Amino acid sequence: MTLLVVGSTAFDTIETPHGNAERCLGGSSTYFGLAARLFTPVRLVSVVGEDFPKEHQQLLSQRDIDLAGLEIQPGKTFTWHGRYSADMNSRETLDVQLNTFGDFQPQVPAGYRDTPYVFLANGAPATQMSVVEQMTAPRFVVADTMDLWIDNERDGLLALLRRIDGVIVNDSEVKQLTGKSNLISAGRAALELGPKLVIVKKGEHGCFVFSNYFHYALPAYPTEQVVDPTGAGDSFAGGFMGFLANCDQITLANMQRAVAYGTVTASMTVEGFGVGRLADTSRTDVERRYAELMQFVSGV
Amino acid sequence: MTLLVVGSTAFDTIETPHGNAERCLGGSSTYFGLAARLFTPVRLVSVVGEDFPKEHQQLLSQRDIDLAGLEIQPGKTFTWHGRYSADMNSRETLDVQLNTFGDFQPQVPAGYRDTPYVFLANGAPATQMSVVEQMTAPRFVVADTMDLWIDNERDGLLALLRRIDGVIVNDSEVKQLTGKSNLISAGRAALELGPKLVIVKKGEHGCFVFSNYFHYALPAYPTEQVVDPTGAGDSFAGGFMGFLANCDQITLANMQRAVAYGTVTASMTVEGFGVGRLADTSRTDVERRYAELMQFVSGV
Repeated sequence: MTLLVVGSTAFDTIETPHGNAERCLGGSSTYFGLAARLFTPVRLVSVVGEDFPKEHQQLLSQRDIDLAGLEIQPGKTFTWHGRYSADMNSRETLDVQLNTFGDFQPQVPAGYRDTPYVFLANGAPATQMSVVEQMTAPRFVVADTMDLWIDNERDGLLALLRRIDGVIVNDSEVKQLTGKSNLISAGRAALELGPKLVIVKKGEHGCFVFSNYFHYALPAYPTEQVVDPTGAGDSFAGGFMGFLANCDQITLANMQRAVAYGTVTASMTVEGFGVGRLADTSRTDVERRYAELMQFVSGV
Repeated sequence: MTLLVVGSTAFDTIETPHGNAERCLGGSSTYFGLAARLFTPVRLVSVVGEDFPKEHQQLLSQRDIDLAGLEIQPGKTFTWHGRYSADMNSRETLDVQLNTFGDFQPQVPAGYRDTPYVFLANGAPATQMSVVEQMTAPRFVVADTMDLWIDNERDGLLALLRRIDGVIVNDSEVKQLTGKSNLISAGRAALELGPKLVIVKKGEHGCFVFSNYFHYALPAYPTEQVVDPTGAGDSFAGGFMGFLANCDQITLANMQRAVAYGTVTASMTVEGFGVGRLADTSRTDVERRYAELMQFVSGV
């Protein structure tokens, strides 16, 4: 089944201990789409400026990502410039220019409105809700969010959480959202806010999955070559949603497999700067690494 | 088979966000012994002062811990006073009085020297080595260490690592030991220093196990009631070594099960102040929680 993502498209300038990259193709919808397309066709709703090059559009459309929902607006594309700490567990934003993304009011094209699987990348809860309201037959809707919205748009976020099926957050966000300092308590409390599924990302420590039916922990894929963590979270979400949309059966076993596929696509992303490594990944690469991850968690 | 532990016995004064406890029974050999005795008889080599009460000795000896190797020296018992941060992921030492432990030169009693399973709790590498040299038939020797020895006694520590079977360290220690900032690279590099087994503890994030034959990741038991993390690492080591000594077959599958039992005993410890919860734990409690942990990692 098809999968819709609504989120940002950006130029990223990235500094890590392994080097720098200038004006790479980035943004949440891009990372998500390039991960999800490994499993299923992707429909993208986003916005760029007139400076967004044809080559980037080609890179995406050649990889099963439908760009009919990519608006090109007068002005410039969203840019972000960040620097990672020595251990790459934290980052500092040196510059952000929202440009055309600043006024983004996503319009889901008529032909996209019946898409059953929907991912709402990080954005204002009101904007995310406006997307939900445009969908005519949503089967499984998952959202990302961040500290800014948890603090400043809590009511809107809580309303969204009551309308959607799942939320993907990181460990500090789920604690902030629920006011619980213990991660297990926080995950359980988040379920009570509405979503049937709460996925808590812990970066290099993997993720926890909370539902009313099962709790599940998965470590990160044990890569030795982390060069740029940018986009890992959106790539995780892309692998997760892409796998689920492809099998089109929301069972506990499929959700569990989907979390492992998300872990694999995130591990691909962090091994290169920007989307480079992820864009070059094949489904065969994914399956090989999935088998390695299963070995890593099952041991002997 | 029997199991020997050599380490500290202490009075701990502990401050956590959940409350305070004064002059609790503590020390590495105590936590280790109370976890390991759930699986196998334990022989303890340690030192206390004349102020060490009979009740503490009774608590240990009533739980299958042989105290023939507990020296009582003139003077006072080792005391430690620490305070945990709000999230309990770091702690500050407010006061340490080594007292009788400061001059501890462990003498393994003659009747203990043929013990096949040996755990060298954190201590100076030269002291740990002196224990290895007293053993007549060691089958499986594992050591703990810390940043102080990695920095200041590196040669002694490297010599020890070439003599023993396994090492249990935390994530920052294995990076410091090997000079690798990636945890997977660090674990692999530590194997090259000699031990056949490297267990990297990541606190609430569980642990990684590195050997030349398999790599394995296990999350922590998902407890919601962490009240005092003191002794979690030694309790992990106790569960791990106790299970292995009991089954007395060092296979990959048994090492993997042993890691899960260590995870369970550590989770018991952190649910109470000091050794209280661990001392009250039964083998039935352990087996119930082991089954829950296996469910947590296998999902549906």
